Amino acid sequence: MHQALHSLHVATHGKGLVEITAQLSAWVAGQNIATGLLTVFCRHTSASLLIQENADPDVRTDLEAFFEEIAPEDGKRYIHRSEGLDDMPAHIRAALSQTQLAMPIASGRLVLGTWQGIYLFEHRRAPHRREIVLHLLGE
Amino acid sequence: MHQALHSLHVATHGKGLVEITAQLSAWVAGQNIATGLLTVFCRHTSASLLIQENADPDVRTDLEAFFEEIAPEDGKRYIHRSEGLDDMPAHIRAALSQTQLAMPIASGRLVLGTWQGIYLFEHRRAPHRREIVLHLLGE
Amino acid sequence: MHQALHSLHVATHGKGLVEITAQLSAWVAGQNIATGLLTVFCRHTSASLLIQENADPDVRTDLEAFFEEIAPEDGKRYIHRSEGLDDMPAHIRAALSQTQLAMPIASGRLVLGTWQGIYLFEHRRAPHRREIVLHLLGE
Repeated sequence: MHQALHSLHVATHGKGLVEITAQLSAWVAGQNIATGLLTVFCRHTSASLLIQENADPDVRTDLEAFFEEIAPEDGKRYIHRSEGLDDMPAHIRAALSQTQLAMPIASGRLVLGTWQGIYLFEHRRAPHRREIVLHLLGE
Repeated sequence: MHQALHSLHVATHGKGLVEITAQLSAWVAGQNIATGLLTVFCRHTSASLLIQENADPDVRTDLEAFFEEIAPEDGKRYIHRSEGLDDMPAHIRAALSQTQLAMPIASGRLVLGTWQGIYLFEHRRAPHRREIVLHLLGE
Repeated sequence: MHQALHSLHVATHGKGLVEITAQLSAWVAGQNIATGLLTVFCRHTSASLLIQENADPDVRTDLEAFFEEIAPEDGKRYIHRSEGLDDMPAHIRAALSQTQLAMPIASGRLVLGTWQGIYLFEHRRAPHRREIVLHLLGE
């Protein structure tokens, strides 16, 4: 049984989902682990992680619209406004999605379903460089 | 330290929570692991996982009503309608709940609290056969 | 590779976020594990876990207000009222946040980002004593 750690940097382009499935799969494939567990951890509170449909891009558009509506950039709602009107909605959106994901590895591959993709969900208006920590355990 | 992998198929009967605690516990009990970590992964984007109260069935009814209200089957809200009016709400409901859960094992058992049950949450109207991957690590 | 299990009891003071980062970090520091994985599991269905900004306390106030608004204590909405009007909202709030978190350990420390804190999120009005199970695996 052995472990591997890796830090992945992902460029975002304002609010929205950035697929990271290929980067995660490529890193896992290079670790020589047939059976194991991958943990993905996002080191931010205004970006998060999500497993979602990777087929129809309209799903992502609708999902982003839902999160926009549930936590709108409305200055009257929030006390915390010092970092911009998009900052407090970003924290709420992160709270409603995931900071971390765990996924089994079988036959050297992530056990994702046919239509599942792994996404970094950027919640701020401005582009950011986000850091994701990967931890793999297995043999 | 050793690992075990298992694939569980769960029949659902339209929208709602299906308890899977007994199946998970039974599989864990047969793996001869006293201390460890169970990871449960749902291979779908229109069904998800949830740990909830397993005592009063009214809790499940109210929880299902909440998810129905927060992501209604309203054709005007969504661009993605090609797979039925219940499909986009299903992806939103999955995003708000969990695709994966991790739980410690102590003395050969899941460390669930007295009132906690593990549920597969079906988000589509039609019955489905859902696949859940279980990964266990410990000794 | 070795494992450690620990049970942490946290006193809450009614609805709101209680930071537990220091307790988790202190326990991890004492386990002599350089690289590994920490899993945190909340044994309750009316309290949950959240990773959030630990800098500006206004963020917690706004976050608590958001959860109050999305699942209000409104007797007309819920069938399950026998345990008090705050009980069903508590289950919904728990469903929208996390019952469990997994975090990599690198150089003997949690890989939290600069502004991330780990919180127990109490959803009931009354003070409670909540039990959190910690599982650590690594070497």
